[in-house]
Amino acid sequence: MAPKYKLSYFPIMGLAEPIRFLLSYGKIEFEDERFESDQWASVKPSTPFGQAPVLEIDGKKTWQSVAICRYLGKLVGLAGANDWENLQIDMAVDTISDIRSKIASYGYEADPALKEKKKAAVVNEALPFLLTRLDKLVKDNGGYLANGKLSWADLYFVGILGYTNYVSGLDLTKDYSNLSALKNKVLEIPAIKEWVAKRPKTER
Amino acid sequence: MAPKYKLSYFPIMGLAEPIRFLLSYGKIEFEDERFESDQWASVKPSTPFGQAPVLEIDGKKTWQSVAICRYLGKLVGLAGANDWENLQIDMAVDTISDIRSKIASYGYEADPALKEKKKAAVVNEALPFLLTRLDKLVKDNGGYLANGKLSWADLYFVGILGYTNYVSGLDLTKDYSNLSALKNKVLEIPAIKEWVAKRPKTER
Repeated sequence: MAPKYKLSYFPIMGLAEPIRFLLSYGKIEFEDERFESDQWASVKPSTPFGQAPVLEIDGKKTWQSVAICRYLGKLVGLAGANDWENLQIDMAVDTISDIRSKIASYGYEADPALKEKKKAAVVNEALPFLLTRLDKLVKDNGGYLANGKLSWADLYFVGILGYTNYVSGLDLTKDYSNLSALKNKVLEIPAIKEWVAKRPKTER
Repeated sequence: MAPKYKLSYFPIMGLAEPIRFLLSYGKIEFEDERFESDQWASVKPSTPFGQAPVLEIDGKKTWQSVAICRYLGKLVGLAGANDWENLQIDMAVDTISDIRSKIASYGYEADPALKEKKKAAVVNEALPFLLTRLDKLVKDNGGYLANGKLSWADLYFVGILGYTNYVSGLDLTKDYSNLSALKNKVLEIPAIKEWVAKRPKTER
């Protein structure tokens, strides 16, 4: 019997969307449980480490969205062909996490003046530096993040864009032609296109 | 012929020490290049994404310390036996990264008053929450972070402790008996003991 998948997360794309992309890509049915923010206090203690998303696989709770995506990537045929290829995928994904973390460093700052100051440093320095290199990585890999072929890193990157764009207040791929092309390519994959068409519409 | 490994990093344990642990565990010879902080401006442009450590493998530059550790973990026989076991390892490692990131959120704050405020929240709330759960994870896994046996997650955790303890200003495992026991167990592995005895002595 096929394993049962239940995803629990806030009612947003956020960190769960790459997981939804990968499950959709693999045509794996899953329960897409979305709890409201005011329910989080009661949900949190039932999570393994006080974090969401949680993906239950046959009742076993897994957490950490990147770890889950690596597992699902392998399952749906989007891992590398060998250890070296998997290293290339992992390096790209962890670089995307660094970009996310730079964005979060100002995106969640409550003090408006401090936020603007932090934002300026990230938007003028860190982001152009990292995105220029990421764009070149895609160029050097024939339009993909790693190994010259589609991998779970590509679905991860495009899956999390809704969130990173929202938190950053930017359209992150706009000025980067290879990243833009990659985004469009992933969104044209029939199973992803179908998911995006039917998913709940949320702003982030 | 065996591949050639060259590690480049600041003259500290830092994020490179888990890589040094894994190479040492596998009895893999490596060049341990350490550049001074004032050389960083000239080293940075030669790194793939402006970050260190960089591990050159037969002249090919790899970056992202966790990705490198996963690759080396597989190479030295410390990966999981299957995809599910690898997921358990990855979840533990990413949880350790979250702990590191909480610590860094105050450890690198330049404003002393703000640093104390941030530190209080992390030390009184986030760290006890995460470390209590991590300690229980080790208890539930027979003294290891995953799968009831030694994995690269354990070497990663102990390898990065020198750094996380320094940045946090705390002895992170002190009040957690299962984490303390794991630390001692890893440091008693002959190849790790040998490395620790001969490595350059640094404060972090």
